[in-house]
This record gives sequence, C-alpha cells and structure tokens, in this order.
Amino acid sequence: MFARFWRWHIDVPGFRFELVATDPDTGARAGVLHTPHGKVETPVFMPVGTQGTVKTLSQQDLRDLDARIILGNTYHLYLRPGEDLIAEAGGLHTFMGWERAILTDSGGFQVNSLADLNKISEEGVLFKSHIDGSKHLFTPETVIRIEHVLGPDVMMAFDECTPYPSSREYAQEAGERTLRWAKQCLDAYDGYARKSLAGHGQALFGIVQGSTFQDLRIRFTEETVKMGFPGYAVGGTCVGETKADTWEAVETVVEHLPEEAPHYMMGSGTPEDLVDGVMRGIDMFDCVMPTRNARNGMVFTRDGKMTIRAARFARDFEPMDATCSCYACQNYTRAYIRHLHHVKELLGLRLSTIHNVHFYLNLMREMRKAIVEGRFLAWRKAFLQAYREE
Amino acid sequence: MFARFWRWHIDVPGFRFELVATDPDTGARAGVLHTPHGKVETPVFMPVGTQGTVKTLSQQDLRDLDARIILGNTYHLYLRPGEDLIAEAGGLHTFMGWERAILTDSGGFQVNSLADLNKISEEGVLFKSHIDGSKHLFTPETVIRIEHVLGPDVMMAFDECTPYPSSREYAQEAGERTLRWAKQCLDAYDGYARKSLAGHGQALFGIVQGSTFQDLRIRFTEETVKMGFPGYAVGGTCVGETKADTWEAVETVVEHLPEEAPHYMMGSGTPEDLVDGVMRGIDMFDCVMPTRNARNGMVFTRDGKMTIRAARFARDFEPMDATCSCYACQNYTRAYIRHLHHVKELLGLRLSTIHNVHFYLNLMREMRKAIVEGRFLAWRKAFLQAYREE
Repeated sequence: MFARFWRWHIDVPGFRFELVATDPDTGARAGVLHTPHGKVETPVFMPVGTQGTVKTLSQQDLRDLDARIILGNTYHLYLRPGEDLIAEAGGLHTFMGWERAILTDSGGFQVNSLADLNKISEEGVLFKSHIDGSKHLFTPETVIRIEHVLGPDVMMAFDECTPYPSSREYAQEAGERTLRWAKQCLDAYDGYARKSLAGHGQALFGIVQGSTFQDLRIRFTEETVKMGFPGYAVGGTCVGETKADTWEAVETVVEHLPEEAPHYMMGSGTPEDLVDGVMRGIDMFDCVMPTRNARNGMVFTRDGKMTIRAARFARDFEPMDATCSCYACQNYTRAYIRHLHHVKELLGLRLSTIHNVHFYLNLMREMRKAIVEGRFLAWRKAFLQAYREE
Repeated sequence: MFARFWRWHIDVPGFRFELVATDPDTGARAGVLHTPHGKVETPVFMPVGTQGTVKTLSQQDLRDLDARIILGNTYHLYLRPGEDLIAEAGGLHTFMGWERAILTDSGGFQVNSLADLNKISEEGVLFKSHIDGSKHLFTPETVIRIEHVLGPDVMMAFDECTPYPSSREYAQEAGERTLRWAKQCLDAYDGYARKSLAGHGQALFGIVQGSTFQDLRIRFTEETVKMGFPGYAVGGTCVGETKADTWEAVETVVEHLPEEAPHYMMGSGTPEDLVDGVMRGIDMFDCVMPTRNARNGMVFTRDGKMTIRAARFARDFEPMDATCSCYACQNYTRAYIRHLHHVKELLGLRLSTIHNVHFYLNLMREMRKAIVEGRFLAWRKAFLQAYREE
C-alpha cells in the first residue's frame, strides 16, 4: 500500500479532497474531504436529517456516533421552516446546533416524487407542496439561492432525477435539460463567489443522469466534468432498476469522472450496496434506510437484518448485536428494546436508530481501514460471508 | 439551622430515612432516603416511567439530569411486558438498565381510571385491560406479589383511590376497605421478608384515603400508622377537588404521620403544588405533568409556562429559559425546538422533556438547599413572585 495525495482540483475556499489510498485490486478509495466544518474521512455514509434533524437523534447523539457529515433536504427546509428563517438563525449549522459538515440535496428528487403536482419545463419545476398544496417554482437559480442561504458545506446542483423505466428519448431529453440546469447552477454559484450567506466556502457537486443508457451516461458525465464541479454524483440510480443496471451505471460514470474529485452515489443503500459502491470507487453515500428501518423495528447486525419487534425476542436478554459497541447494545437487551417497540415508546425508536447509524458509520470506517491496509477484497469477502440479507 | 438525624423507624434491609433539616418557619423538611439503589435526597420529584421508560428519555438522559429515583406503574408493567418476563430479566432495574432507585405504584389508581370495567369487592378489583379487554383481578396479595417480582425499592400498598366527589358514606366504606387491604399487603410483604425476588430490601408505603372528610382522614392516618409502614402516602388528592381541599387533607394527614417516616403526595402536581406540598412537610412527589406537557409543546420556565410550539417563537433565537443549565437550553433555540414540534420531529419531544424534568428536579434541589439554609419562606416568596401560571 502507498498513499497518494491530491490537491482539490477546483478552487473552493476552505475545501480540499485528499486521496489517501487506493485499493490495489479494486476501485476502492480512502480519502479525506476537508470542509469549513471539519474533516470528513471517506468513504463516508451521511445520515439523513431531512427537516434539520436526523430523526430521533440529538446532535450530541450524532457526535457520540462520530458522524462527521449529515444530509439535509432543501425541499423540506424550504417549505418548513423556510430558508429565510434559517438564514436569520445564521444558517443551517447554527439553526440546528451542528458544527460539523452538512450536505444538502437540491430538491430535484423530492419535487418529482413527493410534491402533489409537478410540471417540468425548461425554466424549472412547478410543484405543489405536499403539506398545504401551495404552488412553488424551483429553478436552478432559486435552488442555488436557497442552498447559498441554508449554507451547507456541500450543495447539489438542481437536476431532474430521471425515472425508471424511461425511454431513451426521455432519458436523453431529461439528461440534456439537467446539463443546461447544471451550467445555470454553476453560474449562480460563481455569482455567490462559491460562498454561503454566512460567509464560508461551499462545494457545488454536479449530478450525472442518463438512466440505463450507457452512451448517454458517458456523454453526460463528460459534459458535466467539462463544466468543472468540485465533486460529482451519480444520480438516477436506486429508482427501481436492477442491481446489474445500477452497478453498470455507476461503473460507467465513475470511469469518466476525475480521480481527484469526490464521487457521490445518491440515495443508496443497503450495507451490501455500500460495500459494492465503495468497491467501484464511490466516496460518499446517503440513505434513509438505517434511520427509517430502525423506526420500523428493523436493525442491522453482522449476521444480517433482524426484526427486533418480533415476538421471538420478547425474552432474549442479549444485546441486539453482541459484537457492537454502540450505546444501545452496550446498555440494553433485545427484550427491553422489543418491549419499547411493542408498547410504542419513543426510546425504542431512538435506540434502534443509534444502533443502525452506528452500524453504517462503523461499516464505512472498517472499509476505509481495509483500503488503507490494502486488504479490501479480503475484508469484503469476510463481511459478505457473515452478512446475510433476509 | 441545625440538623437532626433519625433512624429509619421500621426495619427494612438496606433502607434508612435520614432527616437532615427542618425549616424553622414551616413544615418543610430536607432528608436523605437511603435505598439499596443509592441515596435519594428529599424533597424529591420522581419522573414517571410508566412502561419501564420515562417517555422520550434514555436512562443516560436521566442520569445526566441527576434523577435519583423514578416511578414505574405496576398496572402497565403487569399487562406489558408482564412481571414474569421482568423477573426473568432480573427485575425492573436490570430490565431497564437503571441502577438507581425505583418506586412502583400499586395500580389502585389505574384499575379505577384506565381499565374499561372494574368491579370492586372485598377481595379486590376485577378489571378489563385497556389494551385487549382481557379480565384480571388485582387483590392486595397479587399486587404485592407483582411488586415483589418487579423489585422496585419502594412499593405502594394496594388501595382504592376514592373518587371526588364522594359521599361521606362511600368515603368511609372505601377508606375502611383500603385499611383492611393495607393489612393484607403488609402481611404479604412480611411473607417475602420485605425483600424483592432479586433479593434486595423493599420499603412498602401505606396510603391514606378519606376524601375531603377530615375526621376520616385523621382516623385512617392513625390506623395506617398503627400498622407500621416504612413510609406513608397521601392518596385521593388531585382528583378534581379544590386546592383548599387538597391542602386541608395534606395538612391533616401529615400532622398525624410519624415525623421520622417519609411523606409522599401521590400524583401531584404543578411547580406551585410542589412548593406548597414541601412547605407542608411532603418529601416525595410524582406527576406526569413535566413529561406529558413537554410532549404537548408546553415547557416550564422561571417566569411560568410557555407554549413553545406557538408561532410567536418561530424566529426567537434565545434558549427556552435563559437561566436554565439543561442540555436543551444550553444547545438549542426556541426557534429550533418550535420547528421540531411544528414538523412533528421526535427530537422536539425529547428536548422539551429534558428541559421540563430538569426544571422539576432543579426546583426540588433549590428547595432542599433553602430548607438546609433555613430560608425556605424567603425562597418561596421569590419563586412565586417570578413564576406566573398562565
């Protein structure tokens, strides 16, 4: 193993992506994303904090879990409490009381999936709020303004998340529109001198669409990279396509991305997805799975998933995962957590969430260590042998 | 000021109630209740942990708040998860992962207020579960067996909480039945050698009924004291009667209780109630108010109650209470907590609960200090001048 050091290839105040090691056998990379709100070791999983809070956790819980970066949703924060209120608080970090890094998505996924009505035009997306039915227009410029005001460390360009399945014609049309919007986002971003309203640097990531069409994926990747973003995301995966299609798209995109830029796979996934994404050179992930599943009584262990609310755990006085060092496993039994879920006590949701987020973050730390020590494939084999999806 | 020391007047393994100071101007007392699970400084407020958890809080949260004793509900724990399961875990302390003191009530209040049907006889109370309608019989012996198995440090005798208003005849009949049940409870308790199934000492408290009839209150107090309990509770208050009636009953009962025993006022109350109860010689309190109100977005401050979910706090970037040292006030603003309540995020419920429980526990600590320093009346005046109920 040897370490290579890269300069951040696009100049953003306070940012640098340092590539520390590359696995000799695979595309897996270990790095450090330096942000104005601290260092983020990659590969990294970002817990999802949709409405300015990672559901059921306090910011102290997140620090105890050693989360270095969390995700916020622009669509939700724009609707409630509104970006102006957050600006008045001094930005999202101050509003939440979270001094570590934040990434916000662009709302491109939500305006198409959550909003009651949406009308896509060259200008942007007209949508109705899922809360009160009020009408709103998201354009590349408005989204960049909102993200500038919210002040995350990493902001995502406004894109159209191409649905699956899509015709080649539609995927091409939507992907080309996303390219034009990406340029508009970049111009708006440069207009703010690549800084948040609060004054710190922000890194804008471009998003590559193209659905399952590899030639489109290649062309859209090349066009996006030409524009020169500080980082890049694979978009439009995990929307219903097969795993084979997912990884084909990821491989195609990553192959055409600059090695020195961070690579982000949006909205993925299961523990196995994270392992397989890392193997293909992905540095950043987010997904609601660990937090949402926890609230439904599903927890992750080294052996696979476990339905903690199941009756068979009623008299099981072992920890959820005997190998786990999280607060829940160190202090409470399956029987107690099962009881809490059974009688609908909120502590059950929180303990399960703490465990699942720990599982995901720890998985990333283990992978990083294996990459740095040049034994990623062996680690992957051992992990997948023990871990069995239900 | 001078300190007086009392021996625990009834022998229970591992228990002692130490009276440290008595306010020269009022009946207010400062003491220490020594239990097999640590020292509890009195006067004390016990957060309510109905189903083996103080709603929204972890046991670490409770330790951080320096709660020394919490309350569990026998009725709820009997129904779910069942006392046998808790026994298998090693008792309620082990089941919950809570190594400090616990008090359980006897279910006397719940079987009359929560259960769908109840039929009171000399034998006990036949009731239908509020969960599945199944029929159950609580007798003095079954309740003591359940409390012996659950293993709290303090257990309450099975009583009939006399409703308000009651006729003199009914209050007399119910109070005399409660006396007979008290004797049966004491016999069952002695049958277990005053110890839990797990093997530590347990203190059984007697409960005095009598509704608003002072001669009944006096007679029932005297009869209960004659039986010789390690501690005593005023029951049947805060059930709809006027404040004047409440305090008349409390004064009457406390006057006839042994000074050397702990005095517990069940189910009370507002911050003002705690102050006024302490002034009359009450040592122990419990109430769902701080936790339940928190979940409804109502928080306590030195100035009085505050509806934190109100729109007027949307852009208020001050802490809930600027004088408060709790985790919520030290780290989050009214605007953020209001947002969390507004968008129904669980962290809002927990932060409000942390604050309210801190408020209650801190109120008790302040009162204790004032008693020890012989300035309780001056403290009370200052507190009530600042604190205004809405």
